[in-house]
Parts: sequence; C-alpha cells; structure tokens
Amino acid sequence: MNIPTAPPSGFRDFLPDQAALRHETIATIVRVYRAFGFQPVATSAVEDLAVLTGKGGGENEKLTFKLLKRGEALERAQAEKSELADLGLRFDLTLPLARYYSKHGSLLPHPFKAFNIGPVWRAERAQKGRYREFTQCDVDIVGSDSWGAEVEVISAILAVFDALGLSGVRVHLNDLSLVRAILSKAGVPEDQQGQVCIIIDKLDKIGPEKVAAELTALIGEEKRQLVHHAMFAAPDLHALPEATVRLQRISSTLNTTSPGVAVVHDLTLMRGMGYYTGPVFEFRHPSLSGSLGGGGRYDRLTETFGGPPIPACGGSIGFERLMLILEEAGRAPAGSAPDAVLTVFSDELRGRALEIAAALRAKGLSVDVFPGAAKLKAQFKYADQKKAAYALVLGPDEAARGVVQVKDLKTGAESALSVDEACAKIAARA
Amino acid sequence: MNIPTAPPSGFRDFLPDQAALRHETIATIVRVYRAFGFQPVATSAVEDLAVLTGKGGGENEKLTFKLLKRGEALERAQAEKSELADLGLRFDLTLPLARYYSKHGSLLPHPFKAFNIGPVWRAERAQKGRYREFTQCDVDIVGSDSWGAEVEVISAILAVFDALGLSGVRVHLNDLSLVRAILSKAGVPEDQQGQVCIIIDKLDKIGPEKVAAELTALIGEEKRQLVHHAMFAAPDLHALPEATVRLQRISSTLNTTSPGVAVVHDLTLMRGMGYYTGPVFEFRHPSLSGSLGGGGRYDRLTETFGGPPIPACGGSIGFERLMLILEEAGRAPAGSAPDAVLTVFSDELRGRALEIAAALRAKGLSVDVFPGAAKLKAQFKYADQKKAAYALVLGPDEAARGVVQVKDLKTGAESALSVDEACAKIAARA
Repeated sequence: MNIPTAPPSGFRDFLPDQAALRHETIATIVRVYRAFGFQPVATSAVEDLAVLTGKGGGENEKLTFKLLKRGEALERAQAEKSELADLGLRFDLTLPLARYYSKHGSLLPHPFKAFNIGPVWRAERAQKGRYREFTQCDVDIVGSDSWGAEVEVISAILAVFDALGLSGVRVHLNDLSLVRAILSKAGVPEDQQGQVCIIIDKLDKIGPEKVAAELTALIGEEKRQLVHHAMFAAPDLHALPEATVRLQRISSTLNTTSPGVAVVHDLTLMRGMGYYTGPVFEFRHPSLSGSLGGGGRYDRLTETFGGPPIPACGGSIGFERLMLILEEAGRAPAGSAPDAVLTVFSDELRGRALEIAAALRAKGLSVDVFPGAAKLKAQFKYADQKKAAYALVLGPDEAARGVVQVKDLKTGAESALSVDEACAKIAARA
Repeated sequence: MNIPTAPPSGFRDFLPDQAALRHETIATIVRVYRAFGFQPVATSAVEDLAVLTGKGGGENEKLTFKLLKRGEALERAQAEKSELADLGLRFDLTLPLARYYSKHGSLLPHPFKAFNIGPVWRAERAQKGRYREFTQCDVDIVGSDSWGAEVEVISAILAVFDALGLSGVRVHLNDLSLVRAILSKAGVPEDQQGQVCIIIDKLDKIGPEKVAAELTALIGEEKRQLVHHAMFAAPDLHALPEATVRLQRISSTLNTTSPGVAVVHDLTLMRGMGYYTGPVFEFRHPSLSGSLGGGGRYDRLTETFGGPPIPACGGSIGFERLMLILEEAGRAPAGSAPDAVLTVFSDELRGRALEIAAALRAKGLSVDVFPGAAKLKAQFKYADQKKAAYALVLGPDEAARGVVQVKDLKTGAESALSVDEACAKIAARA
C-alpha cells in the first residue's frame, strides 16, 4: 500500500513559521478591514453546482472542482449517464457573496460593506506560484453605485499594504464602460467587445504585434486601426464623459486619502472576469510581474439569482503573492515563540513542572513544558528550536528549595528564583 | 433558470455578528493554544483519496466527499468503469496531521506540539446541530509517550473554555488499553474487543438493556456477565496497573493545574474513532447532551504512511457546539461595530468626508463612511444598524467652518468640533 505523504499536486502544507505568518497577516487584514467599517461574512466552501456554473458555465465550469454524488444518487446518475456531481468547491468569494446577499439582504445594513477571507479552489494545472487551493481576502460594498464605494474598497486594501509595511504599491485604474464606449465609437459591435477586451488584456503576455494580429482576425484591419487610435495613440476619454469624471474623482480622492500611492489611468486594464461593468482596478508592486490584487464594479451579478440588478463593487488581495513578498523580505511571525520552556528533570517532577507552568500562564506568559522524556541537553535544544527566550530547570534541589533555575537562552546567564520572581523576570522582558 | 440562494443542505452562511463571534472565538483559541507552546500547522482541505480511505476504508470511505476526476482522466475512468474520483475533502484534522508529520517531521521540533484550526467536511445526512461542513480546533503532541502530553492537551482545551468564560465543564477520562485488558481477562478475544467497545459506547443512546442484548448476541451470555461485572459492578482497575497509575497521574495533576474542573474516571468512555490506543478523554457541559470536545492517544496512526509507530496524543474542541452555547448565552462579538459613521451630505462633499475618515483612521479609530447616497435620516439608521457610537455630519456649513457635527448616538447630544477635537472625543470613549 503506497499512501503518499505529500499533499496532492497544487495543494500545500505550511510549516509552523509559515502558518504563523499567514495567521498574523490575516489578523492584520481583518483589523484594517474592520477599521473601514466592513463586516465579516462567511459562506460555505461548497456550493450547488447550479450556483457555480449558473452564469453561462464556460470557463467557470472548467475550473470548478466538482463533488461526486453519493449513494443512490450516484448509482442513478451512472445508470442514466446524467451529471455525476451535484456540488462544487467555490472558485472565488464574489459569486458566493452575490448568492448570500440575494438570500440575506433584508437582514443586512444598506448599503452593505462586507469582507470575507477564506480558501478558494480552482482545477487548473498547478505551476510555480499558481495553486489549486489559495486564500482570498475580499472586501465588497453591495448596494451603492457611488464612486465613494470604489474609494473605500481601494483605500482599505491600500491600508492593508501600509499596515504590513509594504511600500511602492501602484494602483492601475480603468473603466470598462468607457472602454466599451470607445469600442462602440470605433464601430466594434457590442457582441464582439468582450472578445476585443480579452485580446487587449493579453498585451503584457503576448506583446503588441500578436494583439494586433488577433484583433485584425476578429474585427478586420480597418476597425483594428480605429481601435488602436482611440485606445493607444490618442486615448478618447470623451467617449463616455461621466465615466471619465468618475475616474478622476476616484483618483484625486485617493491622492489625498492614500498619499504617496501612485494612481494611474490604464486604458488597457481589463481584469479577466466577465462580471465587471464599470470601474476596475489592480494593485501592482515592483517586485511582481503580475498583480497584487484587484477588483471592480459588478452591477449585475445578483441578477444571476433572479433578483433585480444591485450595484456592487469589490476588491481582493492576492494573498499568496503578498505572502511571497513578505517571505522574500524575510518577514518572521511575531508571536510564535513561547516566553519560556520548562524542562522536565524526571517523571516524578513532571507534575510540579506542569503546576509551575499553569501558574506562569495564569500571569499571561506563554510557557511550554517539555512534553517528553529526554536528557537536559536535548530539552535545551528543543527550547532553542522553539525560539524561547528562557529555559526553566527544576531538579530535585530546586524543588526542595522551592525555586527554579531561570536560564536566559541568549546570554546563558542563570539564576535561581522563586516562581513569582521568575514570572516577574520573564514578564519584564516579554 | 432556478438558481438557489440558500447554501446546500448541511452547509451554512453566517451573518456578520455570527461571523464576527466565530472570528473572535478562534482568535481566543489561537491565543490560548500559543500560550501553551503549541505551534500552528496548516494542511490542504483536499487530500489524495488514498490518504483519506487508506486505513481500511469502511466508515471513512462513506463519509468522505469525493472530488470528480477532471478532463481526460474522467473520460478514461468512465470508459473503464474505474474510480471516478481521485481527491477528497478531509473529514478530520488528525489524519492530515499524521501525513504532515510523516512528511515534514525532520524539520519540526521533537516532540512536536501542533495546533490546527479549520473546516472539515463529512457526507452525512444533515440534521439539527449536525453539519456537513464544520470547524475543528485541534491540538496535538506528536512524539511523546508521556502522560504529561495528555495533561498539556487537556489543560490547553480547558484554558480555552476558561478564557471564554465557560464554567461547569467536566472532564471524562478513560484508557482504552485498560478496557482491553479488562475485556481480555473476561475472555473476550482481541478481535471482538473493538466491537464490544462500540456497543458499550452506545450506553447513553440505547440504554443498558439493549447494550446487554447486543453484547449477549456477540459474545454470549456468560462472557457478557463477566464483562458487566468487571466493567460496571466492580470495576477491575488492576487489570492493567500501569494504565491506572497513568490515569491517576493525569487526573491528580489536572486537579492542581485546572482547579475547579471535575475530572472523573469513566470506564464506559470509548470515543468512536478506531485509532485511539491509550487514554481517551471528553469534555462535557451541563447544557449539552453530547460532548464539547475530546480526544485521546493514537500511537499508531503514522504507520498508515509507512513510517515507524510514533506516539501521539491530541484533542479537539467541538467548535460548533461551543458556538451554540456562546450564542445561547447571548454572547455578542466585541469588536464588530465602528467607532463612528461619517454621513455624506452630497456628492460634492463626499471627497472631504473620505479625507476626514482617512485622518481619523490614521489615529487608530474605526470609521465607516456612508457608502451610498441617501437622506440623512437613512444614514442615521445605517449608523444604528452598524451599532456605531457616533455619527459625524458634514454639511456645507460645517465644511466652510472646518468642523464636523459629532452626534452621540446613545444620548443624542451633538457638538461641532474640529477634526482633531472630534478624534480626541471619540478616542476618549473608544
């Protein structure tokens, strides 16, 4: 029997320091999102397939991990050669939010400022930096068509980067309704505009020549030239004046609320997702070729669930890329080391060691009792591995005298102290 | 097209207050586990089916949500009528930890004190209080056969209950090696002992008569009487003296380290999981008929992955039941309300409102800017819904004078203050 010890391809284990840094980073994100008045929501990891593939299927259908039906339902499906799956893992947090709001909207403040942090799953080919399970940290405002929503969403994400000490972030900003207006003026029919956007979106990846070739193939050389002129040579920002005014308001307010962050209008920014309807944005960092997150306005997503169109706008932090930057910068978790490790001299003294640990923990200290039986040398090594500041030794002598030896693991200095004194000494450093 | 807005049966959405209370409770659990020197680990939600069904399959096979193969692999499986799934969702956090330790053990401190908090999935029939997705909060010590490991695991979980203000928790304690020794002395062959334990485990559910009937059917009336005598009438605690000594040490140390918590030896406590090998324990609370968590020693789980047997002991908090108790006690999240809501008088003044919010947030305050366009009355209602302490009003007058109206939403008192004064006033209360 050959049972693997590695996680499946595209999935990951996290060692303690990595897991701790992820915990702490998420705690910072929660704190910042809350400071902006966003409220937490949580949805299930598993959704009905009808929810996940409802909006036309296509790309989403392909990237959804599907859950096999169970019991009789599976047998029936096999016999009838019908759909073998009934449930699926969510591939983002936006579609579940639209479902959540459609279901619970009447119980929520209006407009509703939500954040949701959790794993999502995509059945894509795993490759360097692309995982099949990864964390998203979304922030959304549902029920507002004001440009103020964009400012709040973008500011909250910028404030996260700031709180994490990440500088040099740039915001790329665009408006898809402006792009569509430009394309209309250039004679591109509405039903081809989506495809044109997808091709222009590949500019960074395949370069301007291939983009031009693909555009010509789709809309012909004449329209391709008109599009090129209005998008690149002499950007036609008057094609939809209200969109341009909105972009300017967002951008000038961000200049005041997030000083030092460059905000650039980038007509080629498309954001792949099919559901964006207005402003879109993306965060870039000099150390990354891709983006550090992004988002946009999606005013029609709740229609999927049979409700009226509800204006909404949201953004997401590229958490895995953020962790990559923090880890490459040598960021270590702050709170993962115990203040002290209590060594255990013998099994007879284990009970007393556990009691002393309880007393120290009651004073707010983080204390680890060596959980096995080993020579003191191995226990000191353990204390080093745990990055503890102090090792406490309790031998028969110390137990008889009612003291513990407190050893500073940095300096090697030792002193015999009562439990209260030891507590005060450790707390003074902690 | 009929797309559901409710989550699938057995899965849940959480409203903001519920989600916030869950976040805060998990933060408390993390803090307490860390204070005991446990380190976070994280594993993927998805595992190879071979890992999840490796230990003989059976029950686990049935409760695993399986992921449908994708693309060509699926077509091949359908053509060959072979296994349609290759991956599955984890049904607990213990098996993934055994895999994790088998893979990464050499990089970890020895013994290794781990905690892991996250969702697990079980394809069971959904019923009241039983969900198909729920959170587990595990704490484990891998690599120690000392009874001190049991004390640390049980103490850490008791400390969580204490930190959450939950009193009246009792610890039920037993040792499965002692139970097996008693059954051996009563003449029950080793290969029937597991089944006998499973029957005795049903005592609370089906009552003593049905248990007796099932036992007689399995091992005959004579042995049934011997078992009854040695387990209930005159418990034979000398059947395995070292197990009894160990139980006494665990229990007497807990009496000192967790004063006020009743620890009772309960020979009928079996804990259903097949992998326990020694001491087992369970937490009970007067307001619950079932348990609030539990765990035990599992010294052979790593053998599943081809390695040597490694002694290990772990426990888990029944997080969903804990939340039930906290919610029924009217526990509200502490930090979900913003300090202030800034109303927006007009779109012209929105930029200035967002700037003031940025200034207040920079001082550490939690500030929500009304994200839409509405009459002031609706905006005050919004501030009430968000449970904000203050509403800030910025009309053209205030903007011209460089002040904001600060309204205390409890008392209704209003005063016109500069941004700095408003900040000081709000911070003084916060």
